[in-house]
Amino acid sequence: MSDPRRRRIAALVDGLTAAHLDGLLLTGLSNIRYLTGFSGSSALLVVSTRDVVLITDFRYQTQVVDEVGDIARIVIEPSSLWTGLWQQLAQLGGLQVLGFETTHIPHRDFQRLVESGSRWQWRPTVDLVETLRERKDESEIARIERAASVATTALDRTLPQIHVGMTELAVAGVLEKELRDAGSEGFAFPSIVASGPRAALPHAHSSPRRIERDDWLLMDFGAIVDGYCSDITRTVVVGAASDEHRAVYDVVREANSRASAGVRAGMTGRDADALARDYIDRAGFGPQFGHSLGHGIGLEVHEAPRLARTAEGLLPEGAVVTIEPGIYRPGWGGVRIEDDVVLGADGPRILTQFPRELIELA
Amino acid sequence: MSDPRRRRIAALVDGLTAAHLDGLLLTGLSNIRYLTGFSGSSALLVVSTRDVVLITDFRYQTQVVDEVGDIARIVIEPSSLWTGLWQQLAQLGGLQVLGFETTHIPHRDFQRLVESGSRWQWRPTVDLVETLRERKDESEIARIERAASVATTALDRTLPQIHVGMTELAVAGVLEKELRDAGSEGFAFPSIVASGPRAALPHAHSSPRRIERDDWLLMDFGAIVDGYCSDITRTVVVGAASDEHRAVYDVVREANSRASAGVRAGMTGRDADALARDYIDRAGFGPQFGHSLGHGIGLEVHEAPRLARTAEGLLPEGAVVTIEPGIYRPGWGGVRIEDDVVLGADGPRILTQFPRELIELA
Repeated sequence: MSDPRRRRIAALVDGLTAAHLDGLLLTGLSNIRYLTGFSGSSALLVVSTRDVVLITDFRYQTQVVDEVGDIARIVIEPSSLWTGLWQQLAQLGGLQVLGFETTHIPHRDFQRLVESGSRWQWRPTVDLVETLRERKDESEIARIERAASVATTALDRTLPQIHVGMTELAVAGVLEKELRDAGSEGFAFPSIVASGPRAALPHAHSSPRRIERDDWLLMDFGAIVDGYCSDITRTVVVGAASDEHRAVYDVVREANSRASAGVRAGMTGRDADALARDYIDRAGFGPQFGHSLGHGIGLEVHEAPRLARTAEGLLPEGAVVTIEPGIYRPGWGGVRIEDDVVLGADGPRILTQFPRELIELA
Repeated sequence: MSDPRRRRIAALVDGLTAAHLDGLLLTGLSNIRYLTGFSGSSALLVVSTRDVVLITDFRYQTQVVDEVGDIARIVIEPSSLWTGLWQQLAQLGGLQVLGFETTHIPHRDFQRLVESGSRWQWRPTVDLVETLRERKDESEIARIERAASVATTALDRTLPQIHVGMTELAVAGVLEKELRDAGSEGFAFPSIVASGPRAALPHAHSSPRRIERDDWLLMDFGAIVDGYCSDITRTVVVGAASDEHRAVYDVVREANSRASAGVRAGMTGRDADALARDYIDRAGFGPQFGHSLGHGIGLEVHEAPRLARTAEGLLPEGAVVTIEPGIYRPGWGGVRIEDDVVLGADGPRILTQFPRELIELA
């Protein structure tokens, strides 16, 4: 049982038994990857108490064997994955009541279940695998830590290349090239490079705007290593920081520091959020911190648990979460400082090792 | 009626009337962008014969006004978009039978329709907006053409920087930086850089493999300009091409050329596919061309129409499609040459202007 995938499948089967299900049809690709290792973009997976069957198409014939090995029985389906599904389910036997993933199946495919799959009873399930994925094992934490290291290496190499007059798109280009050179398989999400007043938009993408002297420059990006994501934000001044720059920055930095040091497994996501939010509120910037404190990261860049005012769930040991307080002033700019933190038995550990002092780029 | 969005909404309303629907709930973000211009990641749109209402959240408050203007009535919903939806539908009045997008709504949200939305009758619809999107107007073709130009500029600047010993990831880094420097808003899809035997995998991602002398190097990537994608592939030899390299390359090149010159609006997707496939078959490489000839591009990098053996639909005038024949030999490598072609009234026009002769990088 040293292969973590076998432990995960066993834990899922326990969950199915508790839910009185004979098996589960998985359509969520990240969940399929978590259970089997398969990283392709086309797959259906059936897990029952006795069988694990992965159905994919001919494009992945070589890859699926390399990645999945004997964790699942592999079926290469020449026409439609759904045709393959009905054949496999009929052969498996002993299956009457099957779960499906209500958040990962479009209505059109759900209709296939009630029409072509009408000889089975279908029950919606929510987050059966997502809940398992909240607690990372050592191999997962090691991958996220490598992804964090790739991201900080890239940032370190990017900062000296930034200058007044560069476009945000050009900064993104440098950053993404450094991510690739440091070994990133891809980009965890579209890189955000936002300068000057655009730093006030929490969901800005990179634009052709040119950096002006003494602008804020906010960079929010992530690497991928062995399928696992990192997610980091730093905000710098391209030029000389004013007192106003420093006043806002220091509040965000202290909020980041308090939350990164104070977050614990066993807390609610709401209490974790409050570690940063209460400090920002007291400093008078509460209304300018309009988003939640953070989210889990792993195979997806946004996954459970949530750290937010509305998050009543307990943070489990082994979760890896972002801590990303921010203050945004429309028309002026904004600051966000984001780190990735693993919630260990002995307390939190920061994976994104990069200075948090205010950097002024000459 | 010079704003293309008004024409699109009017065409959709005609479709709703024909389908005996009082209105349509849109959940597909590319469809919402097509109709309104809104590019955010969180939105619901209602289109009826009398009203167009866009519901989004506070993060997009500034952006949505800039992008949508008076095309739709904008509602900023503080809690859940669905809460906002029920309120808006109740206010609109005159709505009894509403369509929803069966391919763009997960089962969990469909359940909201039949539970919280039970005072309306809900009917699944398929591809109502996708069908409109098949025919590009001049403003769309201009954007795809700019995205094609950004991609070819980036490739032109990348080729001289490639050398033996570089990793595929490093080549991807150079290419993506050149895409950014040429003005790409992002990446149409994860760049494929596949060298040596890995060029035989049609869905390879970039890996840490180092390029060896006389390797194939296949690069498949795309730019985004004003939301519109390009998609291009070139395959080069890093070193000197052998006779075997040339023999395979020439077949793919001729297949690309025949299909790019011969494809026409009014053909079926199957007949277009055959323009390349019949030639490759006759050359004896049929079994090694395992995928379809191409697909539409636009706001998404894969959209209607399809050019494939199973595509019976007619290609409409104004469609922009990829032409991407390939030959793949496991263990040896592969060649794909892909262009973007607009189907005009007078015939096809290639948007990706880049040499198709076999390039040997010194």
